[in-house]
Amino acid sequence: MEKLKKQMEFLIEIDKLKNIFRQTLIADKSRNENDAEHSWHMAMYATILEEYAPKDTDILKVIKMALIHDIIEIYAGDTFLYDEEMIKSKEKREKEAAEKIYSILPTKQGEEIKSLWLEFEEKKTNEAIFCATLDRIQPIILNYLTKGGTWKKHNIKKEMVLKKAYLIFEKADERIKKFILDIINESVEKGYLLP
Amino acid sequence: MEKLKKQMEFLIEIDKLKNIFRQTLIADKSRNENDAEHSWHMAMYATILEEYAPKDTDILKVIKMALIHDIIEIYAGDTFLYDEEMIKSKEKREKEAAEKIYSILPTKQGEEIKSLWLEFEEKKTNEAIFCATLDRIQPIILNYLTKGGTWKKHNIKKEMVLKKAYLIFEKADERIKKFILDIINESVEKGYLLP
Repeated sequence: MEKLKKQMEFLIEIDKLKNIFRQTLIADKSRNENDAEHSWHMAMYATILEEYAPKDTDILKVIKMALIHDIIEIYAGDTFLYDEEMIKSKEKREKEAAEKIYSILPTKQGEEIKSLWLEFEEKKTNEAIFCATLDRIQPIILNYLTKGGTWKKHNIKKEMVLKKAYLIFEKADERIKKFILDIINESVEKGYLLP
Repeated sequence: MEKLKKQMEFLIEIDKLKNIFRQTLIADKSRNENDAEHSWHMAMYATILEEYAPKDTDILKVIKMALIHDIIEIYAGDTFLYDEEMIKSKEKREKEAAEKIYSILPTKQGEEIKSLWLEFEEKKTNEAIFCATLDRIQPIILNYLTKGGTWKKHNIKKEMVLKKAYLIFEKADERIKKFILDIINESVEKGYLLP
């Protein structure tokens, strides 16, 4: 029972992810998106877009990565993609947060999930690259749907979006690449994004 | 590209799940939980508690079920577990909603996900039983953490919780069963739940 109690304690602690708000607005523009919703949405992107993942990608691993990739933000906070000052301290803050939150779990399971998160952060395996690509695509689509949402608020330029989304243009399936590039170009045309 | 466009249209439409609110409060009692967060949390329960699933349970299927199990509520609305009047029309409303939302996807993929949802609803396979069990456990724990939350608001009795959570007591692993029964009994002692 001790093991199950630790697992339940972790499942209770991560309820806090529902109160970690991101810069991105949800599609109807009514409020900011939180990390729990974002993680669900990314896991749905992985489920629906599985066929565009590189050959031999383990989709269960991708979905688990999507589910857990932001849990460290419960202690480390959300770091805005374009906040270069906060990005400098991001790695240290997030590694400390990972130690803290994953130590709630039974040791072996905590280590396994921490490794999965590190693999995601390193963006080297097929699974991590595909998952990180979805993590870029999902907010680009929300920014488009909210007529510029976060982009307009922070005066983001097309070039900055392309730079931060480099994984899409270097590694993603050609059809995904075209779909996202079309959305970015249309966003510039419509004035949602600075040229 | 037509196929990808349909898939993206679906991924955009399901953003609405973030605005479907449940009766359950999140753990800090600050507001009601929405279906997207609930689905994420259930998928995390499946990930962390995999070892308590029956032998030969396909955990990828369970996680996918958890992710999609409430999507029909975008059109059918959330039906409160203890609202016997609304439960009468639940099946019809949800089947119509499933037809509508899954027809956005490419035909074969839409049929596959609709089948997965129907399998969940029928609660016959290992995967569906394990997933439905987690769907009962997650709100019981939130009701306990919120000192009775929805139970108090609607004068729910212990007997009603046990009846609605029958799957836990008939089918779940003994340790899970004991953990949840202890929580229910403690909730009665503390006055969160009517005896």
